[in-house]
Amino acid sequence: MQSIVNAVERAFIEQANGGLVSPPRFRVETKQGDLVFTAGAATATEKVIGFRVYDTFANEWDGHQQLVCVFDSDTGVFKGVVIGNLLGALRTGAIGGVAIKTMARTDAEQIAVIGAGLQARMQLEAAVTVRKIKLVRVFSRNREHREAFAAQMAKKLDIEIVAVDSPKSCIQGADIVICATNSGKPVFDAAWIEPGVHVNTVGPKSIQAHEVPTEIASRSSVIATDSIEQLKAYAIPHFLVGTPDEERIVQLADIVVGKRAGRQDQDDMTLFCSVGLAGTEVVVANEVMKKASCKGASP
Amino acid sequence: MQSIVNAVERAFIEQANGGLVSPPRFRVETKQGDLVFTAGAATATEKVIGFRVYDTFANEWDGHQQLVCVFDSDTGVFKGVVIGNLLGALRTGAIGGVAIKTMARTDAEQIAVIGAGLQARMQLEAAVTVRKIKLVRVFSRNREHREAFAAQMAKKLDIEIVAVDSPKSCIQGADIVICATNSGKPVFDAAWIEPGVHVNTVGPKSIQAHEVPTEIASRSSVIATDSIEQLKAYAIPHFLVGTPDEERIVQLADIVVGKRAGRQDQDDMTLFCSVGLAGTEVVVANEVMKKASCKGASP
Repeated sequence: MQSIVNAVERAFIEQANGGLVSPPRFRVETKQGDLVFTAGAATATEKVIGFRVYDTFANEWDGHQQLVCVFDSDTGVFKGVVIGNLLGALRTGAIGGVAIKTMARTDAEQIAVIGAGLQARMQLEAAVTVRKIKLVRVFSRNREHREAFAAQMAKKLDIEIVAVDSPKSCIQGADIVICATNSGKPVFDAAWIEPGVHVNTVGPKSIQAHEVPTEIASRSSVIATDSIEQLKAYAIPHFLVGTPDEERIVQLADIVVGKRAGRQDQDDMTLFCSVGLAGTEVVVANEVMKKASCKGASP
Repeated sequence: MQSIVNAVERAFIEQANGGLVSPPRFRVETKQGDLVFTAGAATATEKVIGFRVYDTFANEWDGHQQLVCVFDSDTGVFKGVVIGNLLGALRTGAIGGVAIKTMARTDAEQIAVIGAGLQARMQLEAAVTVRKIKLVRVFSRNREHREAFAAQMAKKLDIEIVAVDSPKSCIQGADIVICATNSGKPVFDAAWIEPGVHVNTVGPKSIQAHEVPTEIASRSSVIATDSIEQLKAYAIPHFLVGTPDEERIVQLADIVVGKRAGRQDQDDMTLFCSVGLAGTEVVVANEVMKKASCKGASP
């Protein structure tokens, strides 16, 4: 995860410098469902071009897959294809890691994780690569889920993780709050967030259904996203679109390279709204392929 | 090849009935080169949706590949990806086979093949699945190439193949002429083509560089292509665009289903201009995957 967070950070630097090509997503449409493509190229340091493709067919069949195909952006030579839905989660996790690295207090030691699914796991995994974390509290409405999360992630990350039975007790004392649920209603009260805290929201984010309270934005000194363009382009608007805070949203990439100010004070509250910058999938897939062992690879 | 020609023919039937979705190609552009996508869906009989992607980087590096990704158009479930440049050639070969099946004399026995490369081979391989061919003559400027073609294809197809030393002697007596060269200048004289002959042209086809003489069109009773839309959309126009014959070009698919007239008489000359209908790659890939043995497949 460390090297993936680093690769995504380099991609953000490319984005800030105008080197990341991410054309609008395109679709092949049929009556039953579409194929959606998000393409991208990072030609400066990562030297990759490629795309992600996934289907929008709404059914419970097994076998739905995302594909991420990677080519060398210097030569056009095909590098490989990563098949499976894990990569998208890994990518979103790594983006969250860059947000925490860039925006959270440097002395952050405690993390609250709300949600206990795959994305909550990825976010935490990325977070611990960028801050020296001593304690994690996790809340999920389902007791089994949060206890499994605590046990499994504590073992995986070699860190103390406590499952708690309310969002409030989860957030209390945290320097970083990771919100990765599928809740359409805010899962905490903005007043519970203390000065100095950084919040990542990766779950529902539309004006009709969003997991964090809208007031969290007005309380935050810095509001960032990985793609303002994408944030403003949703058919059902993002929950901050049309609010007075909309104009304060900055690109995470611009903070990474110092074009825009990030956290100014240890007591600043900061908010990162993850939307999933197109192009980063390709960078992550490339990184995964670099790390992939030859063991078990087909000829 | 037989089953692939049949699958492509079914795709043409879908095209004629409006069931083949093939949106315009789209591109991801960088300074060094682009990724080009041709997507397609055949939802009626083939039940596939997918796309082909290839790069336009102009260099001699090894490892340039085309990918064709196939999904089930009923469920959206991923079916597989075919990697390699062979599939495109197979597809163009199969389209040529459908053209010959649809347009050539039913009693055709002799084929002239001009060109000795991969595409010439594929065209011939498809042709012999749709007509009872007794004799093939092949011409290529390179003696070694044409002799290798004759020896290898005779063995592969169990048919008599003679390598000849001029285009004229190649064409003489042929009922079907397959032109699959990379020549930018016409490789034969239109006057050499006898009544009743069908010509497939699959090589260069722009107004600036084309392998068959323009006059071949005015001599033909029927001129067909796999995609009129694509034929008319080239940046450098197709060699028949702007000629009096342009308006006579019909869709091969419409002849296949009987919407438009094909050959009316044994003495009709007919011409097929292959452009490569988007969407057919996906059908061919699906067919290849059906046939693929499990032997050696990765888990």
